[in-house]
Order: sequence, then structure tokens, then C-alpha cells
Amino acid sequence: MAQKPSIPKGTRDFGPQEMSRRNYIFNTIREVYSLYGFQQIETPAMENLSTLMGKYGEEGDKLLFKILNSGDFLRGIAADDLGGGATGHLAALLCEKGLRYDLTVPFARYVVQHRDELALPFRRYQIQPVWRADRPQKGRYREFYQCDADVVGSDSLLCEVELMQIVDEVFRRFGIRVCIKINNRKILSGIAEMIGEADKITDITVAIDKLDKIGLDAVNDELRQDGIGEEAIQKLQPIIKLSGSNAEKIRTMREVLAGSEVGQKGLDEVETVMQTLSNSPIEGENKKSPFNGDLEGLLDFDLTLARGLNYYTGCIFEVKALDVEIGSITGGGRYDNLTGIFGMPGLSGVGISFGADRIYDVLNQLDLYPEAVTTATQVLFVNFGERETAYSLPIAAGLRAQGIRTEIYPDACKMKKQMQYANQKGIPFVAMTGETEMAEGKVMLKDMLTGQQQLLSPDEMTIKLKSRG
Amino acid sequence: MAQKPSIPKGTRDFGPQEMSRRNYIFNTIREVYSLYGFQQIETPAMENLSTLMGKYGEEGDKLLFKILNSGDFLRGIAADDLGGGATGHLAALLCEKGLRYDLTVPFARYVVQHRDELALPFRRYQIQPVWRADRPQKGRYREFYQCDADVVGSDSLLCEVELMQIVDEVFRRFGIRVCIKINNRKILSGIAEMIGEADKITDITVAIDKLDKIGLDAVNDELRQDGIGEEAIQKLQPIIKLSGSNAEKIRTMREVLAGSEVGQKGLDEVETVMQTLSNSPIEGENKKSPFNGDLEGLLDFDLTLARGLNYYTGCIFEVKALDVEIGSITGGGRYDNLTGIFGMPGLSGVGISFGADRIYDVLNQLDLYPEAVTTATQVLFVNFGERETAYSLPIAAGLRAQGIRTEIYPDACKMKKQMQYANQKGIPFVAMTGETEMAEGKVMLKDMLTGQQQLLSPDEMTIKLKSRG
Repeated sequence: MAQKPSIPKGTRDFGPQEMSRRNYIFNTIREVYSLYGFQQIETPAMENLSTLMGKYGEEGDKLLFKILNSGDFLRGIAADDLGGGATGHLAALLCEKGLRYDLTVPFARYVVQHRDELALPFRRYQIQPVWRADRPQKGRYREFYQCDADVVGSDSLLCEVELMQIVDEVFRRFGIRVCIKINNRKILSGIAEMIGEADKITDITVAIDKLDKIGLDAVNDELRQDGIGEEAIQKLQPIIKLSGSNAEKIRTMREVLAGSEVGQKGLDEVETVMQTLSNSPIEGENKKSPFNGDLEGLLDFDLTLARGLNYYTGCIFEVKALDVEIGSITGGGRYDNLTGIFGMPGLSGVGISFGADRIYDVLNQLDLYPEAVTTATQVLFVNFGERETAYSLPIAAGLRAQGIRTEIYPDACKMKKQMQYANQKGIPFVAMTGETEMAEGKVMLKDMLTGQQQLLSPDEMTIKLKSRG
Repeated sequence: MAQKPSIPKGTRDFGPQEMSRRNYIFNTIREVYSLYGFQQIETPAMENLSTLMGKYGEEGDKLLFKILNSGDFLRGIAADDLGGGATGHLAALLCEKGLRYDLTVPFARYVVQHRDELALPFRRYQIQPVWRADRPQKGRYREFYQCDADVVGSDSLLCEVELMQIVDEVFRRFGIRVCIKINNRKILSGIAEMIGEADKITDITVAIDKLDKIGLDAVNDELRQDGIGEEAIQKLQPIIKLSGSNAEKIRTMREVLAGSEVGQKGLDEVETVMQTLSNSPIEGENKKSPFNGDLEGLLDFDLTLARGLNYYTGCIFEVKALDVEIGSITGGGRYDNLTGIFGMPGLSGVGISFGADRIYDVLNQLDLYPEAVTTATQVLFVNFGERETAYSLPIAAGLRAQGIRTEIYPDACKMKKQMQYANQKGIPFVAMTGETEMAEGKVMLKDMLTGQQQLLSPDEMTIKLKSRG
């Protein structure tokens, strides 16, 4: 027999159970996005390389999957170009398309391309796979889904507020306890301005982040090693030691950044988002949200949050699960000029991205999937032969018309094999239609978990199966 | 301003309205598949080229999108290979991955790779895009979705029966009147056997298909031009002129193919499928299916149906819309050795594929989308400023907790602009919260269609919006 076929490294097959769980995640996020007026779009898997190149830094360009031109892809390529070692240059000649690397750049391209059709502010969500030629490792794949929502065309902080509410609602539905870390790029700019080291802001946040682990002295040493002067380090002390409630931290920072206009603006923004949130208790019934009175426990103003991508310009946030060590499971922020790269400047936007793969891991670890998360068959009719099947078929059709997922085993093989099939597929009920049942116009329904059998009319059977979801 | 960005030819962006409609199509098909015990899987967009090559004929190999190897893709490639004109050979050196061309080959690969985990017979469905480097033209895209379901591991004709029931149910839900053409590859083999022209069977079906348009004499002329002998043409006469009810056609064919064992087997299969279907009236309420008594109007035994793909070995079928000229909108059939190409012989299977793009066109042309097919916002709160927004926020949260899709306009800009936004987005209700409303604890709800305004409490508003879906 030939060798078992395989799939490219870093990619995955998703079987029925994984699909049910993934669909539960996607559908939950989708529903909440819809509740806030976000509408779905989809863009092609392939974009022109001219759209993608240069948008993710030099490293990102290398991680783009490029698609070989169709037909005679060598036509017009000079021998010189083929021989040399400049594979980047040659790749650009061999390929004019690439697979999308994220959903943000295709979204920016979409907004600019369809500008005349869009009602601004435009609220869109998008749930699609992206591809990156990263070295595969645990938890890092070459194909993975992103679940993004963005509003472009408004600089109102109400948008940030809504994204926080969406985070709260999504994770409340999942049953995952989370903390939202919030910061603002303008505050980081204020800090850099104040200490006169604008280009060192990343080093500073990295060092500050280590306070709990290594202590104040070691943090200060690290800042020195990063080349930050003594005067600046002195000015940073209240920031490094920042503690207390969110309100206290903001109050301290107001003083520290007294001389920085941009810093004060950043603090205004964070404060407005927090105040608006705490003034918006949710009135629905059965609503148990951290926002009901305990905003403090949910939101954490955290100066060490910087986020890697350079395009953020205002509020930034990241979500951590409280009960699993896994890093950020959701993140986002405001950017001021995303569509500028495609010739449409001046559109402010703010976005969020749920990390579906990590949320999947968290739900698995905490065993939080609702029981109903399955699309598996609810009842299997055992196949005893032609006459019995003729009897079963209309009953099965009637069950399906009532929304009950129903199978008839296709072959009249040994009972044991059919029962094994039901067990292996996790089908909770098996229906048997032998001589007696047919004579009485009934069905013997067996509960596969308890082994209990009941002789039921088709209507009784429908009611019983419906009540068991 | 820079040139507007664009997307690769043959690909499409899907905006909010298109997405709602496409999701309606996918969800309908998905629900019906689930009712019959099919479970969803997903496979990676990229497969190893060794999995894909040679599975779709020589033409298909050329239409595969190939992905340039990452990193130094020229390493180890001889200068000779680069210079020559054999692009196929070079492509194989430059690329080891390709985009999936259909869902059938990845499914076969999946079954073989996961054989030890699967409960056979395995019923899976899969709804994912596929990519083909075809020349783009009206209605033909380089990226499009397929919606496939297959059962492998059973040769029972009950599987064919269920696929017909699925077709009936899906198109009944869509409200599209259809006819299912059914034939059997074994009957075609029988015909070829009988006239001694096994390799001419495609020419024969093409010629017969023209009977209505060009008449019997012209059909016979065409058969002669195809190089079919006079004796064979004489034998074909009853087949060309075949007419009457399905039962009558089968009876005639029984006589014509009296000497062909395989032909009789094919007729047995078609007859069994039809009889089983007509004996399975569906018992559910409100069930208006062509199967209820009028199988004849739904199923058409059609000898001219051959279907292009060579792997079919038993029943084959195609679905045509009765009220739109558009060709086949769904098709499928039985194959006997799909997994054999990956070293796992002897698994019989039968599959179906709904053509989502054509179904989309049919639903559009016949204007059959249910009104509820939208995920658009149901109510927009006008933004009059900070105080009014603070008043609106908890009401909006309460509406969302009741499942009502609610937006608050983010900026306190001119009323006219906000109303334009509501109109452009097709939002049916606008909520206003000015001085009077706030003083009374109420909301002024405006119906954007009639212009009518009502002063309502938040609870009254919830009830009104809920009743309007």
C-alpha cells in the first residue's frame, strides 16, 4: 500500500468535533458583532502582491506565500535574473499574487476600492483564514483564522467603548473570565517626550513589565543597559512603581505627564472610555457581566502594554484569560491612517481581533463547551433489511421535518457493527423496527447511554428526541 | 491620489448584502446536510502538489495554483532546469504546495489519512472555497465555494435516495422549482457494449441530447459523422426516441439492453432509487414537497446525462432550475474507487455538490430571498451629544441583551448626516433621545419607511422592534 498522504506542515485538518467547536466560537463572535451593527464582508484569499508587499515590514514580506504565475511564468524574465541569488527580486517576477497575511490590509484595500458604495462610519467584521510562511511550532500555524471587527470613519471614543463591551459580552457567553489591559499610544509618546528618549519607548515598556519578577533595581539596571540616561531613569521612577486603582494610576500619570500635551490627551481618552463604560450598566435580564458594578476587576490600565504593530495611534488593548496561562487571546486598538497606504488619508479607525485558536485552547482546557455544541446525529435507525427500511423511511423523514438529525444505517449488516457505528459516532439513540414494532406501528427506541428501551409511536419518539436536543 | 487598488482577476469581494445572501445559502444547505447526519470537516487551502497533481487530467494540472517555496527557492535547481522551456518541470521544482482545486480530492486524502479515526460509513460535508487558474469569464471565477456532501464506505442505494431527498429539501426551502435528471453510468456502459462502440459513449449522448432541437435525421447524421456504424445507429434508434414516463422509459430500456448484464444492473439501480423515493412520502407538517405524490414531476430518467468527470461508476444526477435558464445548479453521483489513488482501494462512495454561485444567481433572478435574510442593524440611536449618549447607552445595551441589533451613531454630527447613514445602510428604525424624551424616561422611535414617530418606553420599544425581526 502506498505511503499515507499528508498535508503541508503548519496546516491542519479539522474533523467533525473540532468543527462543531470552532463553529461555536465563530458563531458566538459573529452574533455579538452583529448585535453592535457590524456587517460581514469577505475578501479573496489571493491579493495582488503590490497590495501586500511593504505592509508588514521586511520580515513580513518574506513570510508572504506567493503564487506562481500561471502559464509560461518564465516569459520575459532575463537570464541574469534567473541566475543570481536575489530571490526576492526574482520572486516578484515569477509571482504577481500572494495569499493574504492578515485581514487588516485587505480591509483597508476594500474600503478604498469600494469607497463610493460605503456608508461611513463603516462597521465591518470578517472571519477568514490567513496564511504566513512562519516556522511552524506549537500553537503557531501557517494557516489560521482571524476574527476581526473594525470601524473606520469615526474618531469617537464610543467605538472603543463598544469594543470593550463586545469583549465583555463574547467572553461572558464563553464563560471565560478575562482581564482587559488598556493603554494608549499617546501616553507612551508622552512618556518618551518627557524623558527625551522617543525611540526608546519599546525598551522602556519591556523593562517596566519585568518589575514584579526582577524588582526595581534590576529594572533600573536594564534601563541603563538600554542606554537610557540617569535623569530620564529618575523621571521614570513614578511610572515604574505605578500602582493602585485605575483612577489612582491615572491621577499619578496626570502629574508625571503634566508637561506633555499628547500625554494628557492619551489620559483623557483612557479616562473617557473607562467612565463611559462604568456609566453603562447593562439593563438586560440574566445579565451577569463584570461591567455590572465591577469595572475595576475587568479593566486594567497597564502602561506596559505597547502592542507590536506600529500603526496604532490611540487606545490599545489586550485581553488575557484569568484561569489559563496562554498570553493574549484578543487585542486591538485605534489607528489613524490605515487607508492612507492606498491613497485615502484621514480615515481614523479602531479594530479588534479575537484569537480563535487560543480561545479554542482555553475552552478545551477549562472544559467550557456547552453540551449542545454538536451537530451530530441524534438518532440512528438500525437497518434490518428492505421491508424494515421501507417502514423506517417515512418515520425518519417525519423526524427530520421536526428538525431532528436522523440517520438510517445504509446497509443491512450485522446488528453489532451498526451499534458500534452508533457508539463511535456518539449517537445517543438507536431506533429499531422489527416485526413486532411494524405490526404495532411503533418503534423501539434505545437510549445508548442507559441501555433502556422504550416502545414508542413515531409521535412519542419525536417528542422524546426533541426534549433531548 | 494613488491609483485605486484592485484584486486579482477572477476573484471577488463580497459586501454585507452579498454576504447575508451567501450565508443564507450556505446555512440552508448546512442545516439540511446535518438533518441527514452529515458532519462538517475542513481541510487546508494548501495541499501538497503530490496530492493534487494527476488527479484532474493534464488540463487540470495546468489550472492548479502553485505556491512558490519559501526562502531560497532556487537552491538545488540546476541551471539547465531554469533555462529551458519546460515550465511544468520547473514549476515542480519551485513549488511543493498548491491551492485545492476541488473538495473531492482533499476529502479522499482526508479519509485515507484519518482512516483509523473514522466511523464508516463516513458522512461528511464540506463548504470551502476552491481555486482554479481558469480564464475568468461571466459566471466563472478563479475562487469559488463548493458545498459538497459525500458518504464513503457503503454501496447501499439508500445513500442515493437520501441525496435526492436532500436536493428536494434544500430547493423546497429556497423556493426554487427544480427537476432532477438521473442516469446511471452502468446503463451508458450497457449501451456502449450493445453497439460495440465503448469509446463513443460521449459522442452518442451529445448527439442524442440534440434530438429536440435538430430532429431525428440530423441526430443520425451526426452519429455517422462521429464514425458510428449503420448497424449501431439502427440499434440506437429506440434509445434516441425514448419517451414517456420514467417507468415507460425504464421498460423500453430493459428490452433494448436485454443482452447487457451491466446495463440491466444500471436499470435496477435507477428503478430502486425511484421506487424507494416514491414509497417515502414525508410525514412532517406543512411539508409541500414534489415527492408528495408527484415524483414524476421531480425526477427525470435522462439517458443523455453523462457528466464529465470520469470517476463516476453508478447513479449520476444533475439538478436544473425550472424557471431560470442557467444549466446545472447541483450534481453528483456514485464512484467506486476514489480513495484508491491514495492507496486505500475498495471504498465505494456517493456525493453531491451544490453550486452556490449559480443558486445565488437563481435566487436573485427570481427574487426569492426571505425578508429576514439580513444581519443589518435594526435600530440606530441618533447621537445628540454626550449627555444624550450617556442616556442612550444603557437602553442600547438592554436592546442588545434582547437580541436586537443596535447601533449608536458614534459622532454628534448633523442630524441630516446621521439620517443619511441610516438610509444608506437600510436601518428601518431610528431612536431619538432629546430633552423631552430624557425627562420622561422615553425614546422617540421613528419608522424610516413610513416616517411615523412614536414616544415609547424602553420596554415598549423592545417589544416593537422584536416583533419586526
